[in-house]
Amino acid sequence: MTVQTLTMDDIRDLAQQLRVDSIRCSTSAGSGHPTSSMSAADLMAVLLTRHFRYDWEHPDDPANDHLIFSKGHASPLLYSMFKAVNVVTDDELVNTYRRFGSTLEGHPTPALPWVDVATGSLGQGLPDGVGVAMAGRYLDDLPYRVWVLCGDSELAEGSIWEAFDKAVYYHLSNLTVIVDVNRLGQRGPTELGWDMDAYVRRIAGFGCEAIAIDGHDLGQIDEAMAKASAGDRPTVILAHTVKGRGFSEVEDREGWHGRPLPAEMAERAIVELGGERHVTVAGTRPQPGKPRQRPDSEVVLPRYEIGAKVATRLAFGQALAAVGARSRVVALDGEVGNSTHFEEFGKAHPERYFEMFISEQQLVAAAVGMSVRGYVPFAGTFAAFFTRAYDFIRMSAISAANIRLCGSHAGVEIGADGPSQMALEDLAMFRAVYGSTVLYPSDATSTASLVRSMADRDGVVYMRTTRGAYPVIYGPAEEFPIGGAKVVRAGKGDLVTLIGAGVTLHNCLAAADELAGRGIPARVIDLYSVRPIDTETLLAAAAATDDRIVVVEDHYPAGGLGGAVLEAFSDAGHPVAIKHLAVRGLPGSGTPAELMKAAGISVGDIVRAASQATGK
Amino acid sequence: MTVQTLTMDDIRDLAQQLRVDSIRCSTSAGSGHPTSSMSAADLMAVLLTRHFRYDWEHPDDPANDHLIFSKGHASPLLYSMFKAVNVVTDDELVNTYRRFGSTLEGHPTPALPWVDVATGSLGQGLPDGVGVAMAGRYLDDLPYRVWVLCGDSELAEGSIWEAFDKAVYYHLSNLTVIVDVNRLGQRGPTELGWDMDAYVRRIAGFGCEAIAIDGHDLGQIDEAMAKASAGDRPTVILAHTVKGRGFSEVEDREGWHGRPLPAEMAERAIVELGGERHVTVAGTRPQPGKPRQRPDSEVVLPRYEIGAKVATRLAFGQALAAVGARSRVVALDGEVGNSTHFEEFGKAHPERYFEMFISEQQLVAAAVGMSVRGYVPFAGTFAAFFTRAYDFIRMSAISAANIRLCGSHAGVEIGADGPSQMALEDLAMFRAVYGSTVLYPSDATSTASLVRSMADRDGVVYMRTTRGAYPVIYGPAEEFPIGGAKVVRAGKGDLVTLIGAGVTLHNCLAAADELAGRGIPARVIDLYSVRPIDTETLLAAAAATDDRIVVVEDHYPAGGLGGAVLEAFSDAGHPVAIKHLAVRGLPGSGTPAELMKAAGISVGDIVRAASQATGK
Repeated sequence: MTVQTLTMDDIRDLAQQLRVDSIRCSTSAGSGHPTSSMSAADLMAVLLTRHFRYDWEHPDDPANDHLIFSKGHASPLLYSMFKAVNVVTDDELVNTYRRFGSTLEGHPTPALPWVDVATGSLGQGLPDGVGVAMAGRYLDDLPYRVWVLCGDSELAEGSIWEAFDKAVYYHLSNLTVIVDVNRLGQRGPTELGWDMDAYVRRIAGFGCEAIAIDGHDLGQIDEAMAKASAGDRPTVILAHTVKGRGFSEVEDREGWHGRPLPAEMAERAIVELGGERHVTVAGTRPQPGKPRQRPDSEVVLPRYEIGAKVATRLAFGQALAAVGARSRVVALDGEVGNSTHFEEFGKAHPERYFEMFISEQQLVAAAVGMSVRGYVPFAGTFAAFFTRAYDFIRMSAISAANIRLCGSHAGVEIGADGPSQMALEDLAMFRAVYGSTVLYPSDATSTASLVRSMADRDGVVYMRTTRGAYPVIYGPAEEFPIGGAKVVRAGKGDLVTLIGAGVTLHNCLAAADELAGRGIPARVIDLYSVRPIDTETLLAAAAATDDRIVVVEDHYPAGGLGGAVLEAFSDAGHPVAIKHLAVRGLPGSGTPAELMKAAGISVGDIVRAASQATGK
Repeated sequence: MTVQTLTMDDIRDLAQQLRVDSIRCSTSAGSGHPTSSMSAADLMAVLLTRHFRYDWEHPDDPANDHLIFSKGHASPLLYSMFKAVNVVTDDELVNTYRRFGSTLEGHPTPALPWVDVATGSLGQGLPDGVGVAMAGRYLDDLPYRVWVLCGDSELAEGSIWEAFDKAVYYHLSNLTVIVDVNRLGQRGPTELGWDMDAYVRRIAGFGCEAIAIDGHDLGQIDEAMAKASAGDRPTVILAHTVKGRGFSEVEDREGWHGRPLPAEMAERAIVELGGERHVTVAGTRPQPGKPRQRPDSEVVLPRYEIGAKVATRLAFGQALAAVGARSRVVALDGEVGNSTHFEEFGKAHPERYFEMFISEQQLVAAAVGMSVRGYVPFAGTFAAFFTRAYDFIRMSAISAANIRLCGSHAGVEIGADGPSQMALEDLAMFRAVYGSTVLYPSDATSTASLVRSMADRDGVVYMRTTRGAYPVIYGPAEEFPIGGAKVVRAGKGDLVTLIGAGVTLHNCLAAADELAGRGIPARVIDLYSVRPIDTETLLAAAAATDDRIVVVEDHYPAGGLGGAVLEAFSDAGHPVAIKHLAVRGLPGSGTPAELMKAAGISVGDIVRAASQATGK
């Protein structure tokens, strides 16, 4: 049957089916969130049948609307919708939900083709949806709508307000947020309960269209969704609902969050809900449409003269502008584009440059949303401030998003600004992310080359850049494969290996000069690819220098360069102990030289460590 | 002179002095943010002379008001205020600002006795201030006020809205926020510019008292601050200001963020501002007052029978409730207290239990704020969701805050909920934090003992707990010093060492049983203290088992238990290569047993790795 033939009674039946199926699958799994699904069933029944424009046979149709369950724990409802449109069978739903190997996971992930992003960490689906809506309006130039179902509890997350703010700033009239205000969180009542006026005041105060409705009145739902689709602003439908709606034994009761109904309760519930149904609906197809195509041109990377002093953050910006010749590359700035040099891209490609202001969570989420639509996003801020978005970065790996993040101003090298601005944990943080790539170039040439590689790299790809200007080391013909390392200095009689990256590579080179003068020839390795790491080059250096290795990093000691090197040797079955120079105290302000000396990562410290290692 | 004798003209003079000094110190340092200081100088001159109640000779007086520069980059203004109240000399200000070794750092830190918390990562000072105000109202029961100076740019940070939300929820009429709406961010105009109505709508929409004023009209400032002090709600003074106010060459100009004036410009500016002044003011003293004292009682930890199955998250909650016998211990929940078992504390000590709902940034910031007032905060959520607050955790280390964080539901062991709920990066994340302590107990007895130790431990102290119930291993007399490890099983002929923590320790024990049956005696180490780590015990085990070591962790491979062990051996100069079992793929849903097997951290995997290590 198609949308035209459905009466409100049909839709009411569908809603009951969604409730029954939510109960059936979660009771069968022995876990899950049926009551959080039941509250939103009427909302989703109306959306699915009357407003959501989607070709279920072609989830990759670029004209499709997008539906994101920001309240990912309502996965029983989402998967029951998938059954209702006949892309998941009843057997799959009831017998594989939350089971090992099933794509019907406890919280939605893009293992399912109809799911854009992984949710389950609350407050993320909406910011991701803002990114998709930005892509629709500013990149694809397609009229698809983005529908996001939020829980009321997650409105306590600041990221939700970053999203409302940006939705208004970017005039995302193609975004509709449906908030399932069922009054009950995990452990009890929410802050605002059913104070719909308070929600309206907050959301309208931010500039969104806020519509409060009875979330179980199909007519009101329909009207609100129609109004949202026709509106000229982002719309937030605040739906007053009842948790567990439809089964009197649990309706609006505490203690039923995240609990499946025991089998005999489930039976009673299904009877009260009118029994099992297996209705399928077709929904509405999108108007055919293709994303706007922009011409690609050739990428011509900037070239740098060996010995010229160029900050890697500047080379990053210049290379990003160059890589922007590829029309699917987009860039997002966290209001520091003049420091990170993202603004170079903005000058060259203003139509694909997005100012996200100081909201790092939304910065990363917008990149994730643009990745959903196949763009190649780069997002940037100070490396220290990506810590603000770690949950989003972690989740983007589960979303299988392809995002490139560049953090500038790494380490004590930044100098006088002090520790709040110094990234000293970022390498550990990014290395721990599933499937991540971590790059840390030392000169402008390698930076530019790696920026080009980043554009083609899947997953979470991070580059750390340095504030200060240091000499260009490499000529333009040099190649820098991800997963490689450069032996910058080597000789037959090398007694010790010095490993650095970023500013510490320059310190290692200066130390090698000094050591050479003392009769201690040193091999120097540029570990520009921290993850994946070039184990082969490490093993060769260890073999050549009798396992005498000094690792120097402008980062706290745990989990950074030193950890990466030790883990690589261990994984290769080659035991080593390194001399590990890292930032062990809490830095303050000062010049880069003073702070590196105080941290024990200066040239003199390296010389000393290498001398000790060699016993000379 | 004292406040009574100051006319508005005197205060105007003081404001000019603050501007001049902001210019002088930043020009002298060659870096810093004079223009962002000048916009707020009138606001701070009125506050300092007429509303801020503080005994400058006794910064530890509990009755003192609190002043937090959430816009920490305006440190020249703050330090100029310190000069004006005669606690910093003009020489210190002008000649040590931003210099190595000076406490007048680029961004404020508690290295200065008048600074509560480190700021400089925007959007954090206000949430921290909410915590201080909560302490004032609910714990100290003192009438001190908390004044927070925010920039307009930082209102784009979601954490600011988490803070407004909680300020209203907790009726923090003792909190006044002053927003310096100077229209210009780092790289250009802010989102809302001088649209004061938009700010008022948003902030009033959240339920705060919002007062828009001309931030250079001393009378309006004075009136607004008086109103704030008398109000019954958190008040936000939205001050329309001009960046660089007072020096016509930079007023309201782009391109002057974070730039000191060149020397000759500075000279002209000082002339235009009326020249150097060295006025000192006394300000207003607080009414004498002492914090409410609550009686302590004896801590009686829960006791567990060896072999009983108890989840460490439950033992954590029970122990926390017991440690609550100490009256300065407080607990904060991220709306998952029934899962983390923080609710055990809430039942026992409801007056010291704070529900922060789903806002992990504010959750941690409130703990930091309570630490400022000397309380002993524990804050909890799922371990995965502390990633949301990583920037706050990082900054709390710079704040020298003493906070205890407990993250439950670690690793794939949680089962069906799937990867969004699985902490698999948290050990790397917390290990990288300056001065952190990372604990990961395996049974109820050690958990309870460590919870008691956490209360006395300074810095960022993290405990990771496990969802499932596993057997109690230790008797109640056993001790678990932080920095220690337990050799749970050992014999003279041990061939291999198995190292685990949390659920993997139980897997190691089962593997040891199986290995024993195969003639491979194994030593088993409970690495409950991941940082600091017990290097001595590790070295002894390595010596006893000929460096054959298997490390098993329910965490991604980089920077977790394996990294900690490798770094410890390396630091000790003892080269090892470990067999490292960790979660290398992206997990989905399933049973704990299925997921641990799929991840390669099951009993069978350990047996296999140990067999390989021993060549048997």
